[in-house]
Amino acid sequence: MKDEENILIIGAGLCGSLLALRLGQRGYNVKVMERRLDLRKEDISAGRSINLALSNRGIKALKMVGLENKVKSLCIPMYGRMLHDKSGNTKLSKYSGRKSEYINSISRELLTALLIDEAEALNNVSFEFHQKCDAVDFENNIARFTNTKNGTVLDYEADRIFGTDGAGSTLRKSYLSKRKFLFSFSQNFLTHGYKELTIPATKEGEFQTEKNALHIWPRGDYMIIALPNLDGSFTVTLFLAYEGGKYNFNNLNSAEKVQNFFSKEFPDTIELMPDLTTEFFKNPTSPLGTIKCFPWQYQGKNLILGDAAHAIVPFYGQGMNASFEDVFEFDATLEAHNGDWEATFKAFQIKRKKDTDGIADLAIDNFHEMKDHVASTSFQQKRTLEMSLETALPNTYFSKYSMVTFREDMGYNQAMLLGRAQDKAILNMIEKKQLNLELPAIELHEKIKAETNSILKS
Amino acid sequence: MKDEENILIIGAGLCGSLLALRLGQRGYNVKVMERRLDLRKEDISAGRSINLALSNRGIKALKMVGLENKVKSLCIPMYGRMLHDKSGNTKLSKYSGRKSEYINSISRELLTALLIDEAEALNNVSFEFHQKCDAVDFENNIARFTNTKNGTVLDYEADRIFGTDGAGSTLRKSYLSKRKFLFSFSQNFLTHGYKELTIPATKEGEFQTEKNALHIWPRGDYMIIALPNLDGSFTVTLFLAYEGGKYNFNNLNSAEKVQNFFSKEFPDTIELMPDLTTEFFKNPTSPLGTIKCFPWQYQGKNLILGDAAHAIVPFYGQGMNASFEDVFEFDATLEAHNGDWEATFKAFQIKRKKDTDGIADLAIDNFHEMKDHVASTSFQQKRTLEMSLETALPNTYFSKYSMVTFREDMGYNQAMLLGRAQDKAILNMIEKKQLNLELPAIELHEKIKAETNSILKS
Repeated sequence: MKDEENILIIGAGLCGSLLALRLGQRGYNVKVMERRLDLRKEDISAGRSINLALSNRGIKALKMVGLENKVKSLCIPMYGRMLHDKSGNTKLSKYSGRKSEYINSISRELLTALLIDEAEALNNVSFEFHQKCDAVDFENNIARFTNTKNGTVLDYEADRIFGTDGAGSTLRKSYLSKRKFLFSFSQNFLTHGYKELTIPATKEGEFQTEKNALHIWPRGDYMIIALPNLDGSFTVTLFLAYEGGKYNFNNLNSAEKVQNFFSKEFPDTIELMPDLTTEFFKNPTSPLGTIKCFPWQYQGKNLILGDAAHAIVPFYGQGMNASFEDVFEFDATLEAHNGDWEATFKAFQIKRKKDTDGIADLAIDNFHEMKDHVASTSFQQKRTLEMSLETALPNTYFSKYSMVTFREDMGYNQAMLLGRAQDKAILNMIEKKQLNLELPAIELHEKIKAETNSILKS
Repeated sequence: MKDEENILIIGAGLCGSLLALRLGQRGYNVKVMERRLDLRKEDISAGRSINLALSNRGIKALKMVGLENKVKSLCIPMYGRMLHDKSGNTKLSKYSGRKSEYINSISRELLTALLIDEAEALNNVSFEFHQKCDAVDFENNIARFTNTKNGTVLDYEADRIFGTDGAGSTLRKSYLSKRKFLFSFSQNFLTHGYKELTIPATKEGEFQTEKNALHIWPRGDYMIIALPNLDGSFTVTLFLAYEGGKYNFNNLNSAEKVQNFFSKEFPDTIELMPDLTTEFFKNPTSPLGTIKCFPWQYQGKNLILGDAAHAIVPFYGQGMNASFEDVFEFDATLEAHNGDWEATFKAFQIKRKKDTDGIADLAIDNFHEMKDHVASTSFQQKRTLEMSLETALPNTYFSKYSMVTFREDMGYNQAMLLGRAQDKAILNMIEKKQLNLELPAIELHEKIKAETNSILKS
């Protein structure tokens, strides 16, 4: 049965490649069509999303396909946020009070290449590149591709089509443009955009600043962050408004203005980024958008997942993790329904939607937290308290960050509801001086639990 | 100056016609292009949105163009909701405790025809029909039209373009499809659809049931409503889920099943609707969607308004009123900015967006209120209390419904915030038996105000 089933995956990014590998492992015939070049053979253009944060939910899915160890060698652990103030002072704010909990900087390119290699090694999975999907007739399950090298147009019919073609998904656009298909859809942009820059390695290939941290320069209305790469460099991202305020992407229109902005706001980065102004004008400024939609599937014939179904802003480091968890959940649902596609597609979208809505909202919250709140006193008091509770009560206390990032057994939605209430409880009690930090951890936890529950009930 | 300015309005519905009239009165040269036929000369297809509820916000805009009296002759006042239970008992729940406050049933066709007549009577305003807008190059302000009678294609360039082309707006779609334009957009469908039916007049042209009311048959998961027409008939609308539950649009697939559904659930309508099953299968089932987006304009060159910018569900009877209020607000903004289009467009969208978001959310709330809550005891207690307060304190007490519907001096957003808190306050206090209804109105009002304020602050 399975080897008669003809599966098409549109998009060989992280989500599509992992899905191809998993369905291949399950014995299905899988063809993956990718718009871009084969990143294993040709140089991809730099300047966008070079590295990513891999954490427990993503690792859970990589374990499922047996790649946990191979992936480990690509990872650089980041144990906390290294905060840089305007005077160049730094302070490490750890992600968890449990030693085993940290996030990992990983190269999008290397991880994707690994997944494609592993999938292609199966004789029932194949990839084609330079195949741009122009449209999907989702009622008849026929996708049209143009070969971007020679212009050949091909109609490809499949028993199942998966759209893992990212935030600009062609399959999703075909859902949206069909008038009789009641497709709820939203796209919302932040007023900020982002631009990637680089802190290169030293001549000796060493890191110029602390390797095992996610660096943040929080400045209220804007920020820069930096994540380490295996070659000793850091990928730096500037998040800044397109317009308004003193500095914005529209008015930073000369090398002098850019240099002046960084000198004033991020002085300790100046000597780390010799190519700052060149890169600034060479690299694109990209928007930050959230996409939500429903349904994700049509009559058990085709399904969107990953960014195609739920593109989120990057501030919780959960974009890739959420997409990988999609594949994990999809696989479990397929298993539970004995390969009945229609039942699987329907159950999957229902179960998964509330969790991806949750992480979308959490990621927007974290934008404000990272550029602004992390620098505030009460936020830092909360984090200090939470670190000590997680250290003292490793099996029972979990901060919102820990629930979202390290609790792969808990859905994003639950992590959001519980985590938001707990944050509010702690900040309220700190503000009203109702928390005597001298008390034993277990008593503090009881107080926080009681306040959290009362917030959850109100 | 003004007569050199070349204005194009896409869409001669209620909003576009009123806008054309107003801009014409201000001396601008206005061309209106409409996809459909001239409804003054040809018969429009029935079966969709035949009558509408006109209330204070709409009347405010009609006063502005001097049409208040002409419109009055088209109106049938509706003083309250006439609730029909399953046994055929009826109960009138008034809209306000003030005698002067009621809503009006009005024909979409007659009102649109009046607005077009009035606009066309100005020598600087002209209309063309059968002109389907295919696309708008909004950066260069060129709109492409196909004449649906002879197939002629025309590119029309204008100094200003207004998209009043409804929920399926072509100008809005051109904003959405332009990748570099950061256009936030959402469309969300209810799981219910609607279908229009008719209670005809008697042979003598008389109304078969109470003329001056909006009739509701609330049944929890579904409902029908009926609004009077000048010819003695009522336009009936069934709101029902597409799938799920005992009855839905998908499973009501035979005359027998439809007849059985109405006999069981709405028995008193059976003899009022002799053509029920014929109409049921002839008339379309239409979806109920909410559209929100932002921005509404591009560089002062073009602007969407009315349903094109904010389509809402019909349950507050505010769709037309909100569109008319758009024109009123737009006119005031244009006046305030001395005809500076770019400043006007920018100020208008900022001021108006929060109010149209508000009415969109209120309209969804009211869906649940109408099909379900109106039949509950505590809701009815609240309405009785509010009627007596509005009667006793006509200048100071306003229910949420009154604020939304009759307070044309108050924005929808404020009406929503205040009205929701007040509703919650009253229902809480009724539930906890904290309201002694024997108390003087002024004391009850003080208690409600205190509880409302405490909810607003929390």
